[in-house]
Amino acid sequence: MEIERKFLIADLQLVPTPSDRSLIKQAYLRADSTCAVRIRIRGDKSYLTIKGASSESGMSREEFEYEIPLSDAERMIKMCPNECIIKERLLIPYKGHTWEVDVFHGRHEGLVLAEVELSDESESVDLPLWVGREVTGDPRYYNSYLINHTI
Amino acid sequence: MEIERKFLIADLQLVPTPSDRSLIKQAYLRADSTCAVRIRIRGDKSYLTIKGASSESGMSREEFEYEIPLSDAERMIKMCPNECIIKERLLIPYKGHTWEVDVFHGRHEGLVLAEVELSDESESVDLPLWVGREVTGDPRYYNSYLINHTI
Repeated sequence: MEIERKFLIADLQLVPTPSDRSLIKQAYLRADSTCAVRIRIRGDKSYLTIKGASSESGMSREEFEYEIPLSDAERMIKMCPNECIIKERLLIPYKGHTWEVDVFHGRHEGLVLAEVELSDESESVDLPLWVGREVTGDPRYYNSYLINHTI
Repeated sequence: MEIERKFLIADLQLVPTPSDRSLIKQAYLRADSTCAVRIRIRGDKSYLTIKGASSESGMSREEFEYEIPLSDAERMIKMCPNECIIKERLLIPYKGHTWEVDVFHGRHEGLVLAEVELSDESESVDLPLWVGREVTGDPRYYNSYLINHTI
């Protein structure tokens, strides 16, 4: 089960220096409100990920992820009907949580999203000053929605 | 690349004793003419399989298969919109090839298909007397079609 909250970031310049950064390229063999089948290349690793429907709160989804060979990922990405999402992922530790900040490129240039993973839906989390409006559960900010739309 | 020919079997009683048999339960997160995302439980092993579109001859498809934990497979099968396919798979060696005979149960009870895997599309294969009409490339006999239809 993946449990996370998601926020917009209005000004990337306020975001502190990340502890890690990697380039992500991903595409979807299926992407709708009940299921996503995602191929992701992140740095030198590749993954096949299945996600289920979101919970009522929009915070939780079943998620199954498997590492796969890069050559498989490259070939499966060619089978995906939509353009890839290209984004840079910054990891930023803040008060006991590691925030993931996704800086989108290409057709979503300018979009920056921050996510924080929780161990359960009721876990409290200190919000850094540099995060903006919460968009948890807003389907317009799912990556599986963004592949078909421009913000 | 998966390259195979497929045949109907009219009379299961003519099929010789298999060298191996296993029960298969499978369902699809996506199943259309360009892509299949299949969850399969076969005996005590489970797999996540991605298949691409068929070649013009209907014999070849790109295929990527990953072994996954049984508990993952069971949960992902619940995410699939259609009824599972349940079939028994018999392995029957014949003149240098191993034939896979699938005996369907449930809503496709009575359907028996035989498949033989080839290393390239032009490879010749001796057909056993117990195989009937060839249905290679006929989409009605794809398992990904059968989940939505009754023969």
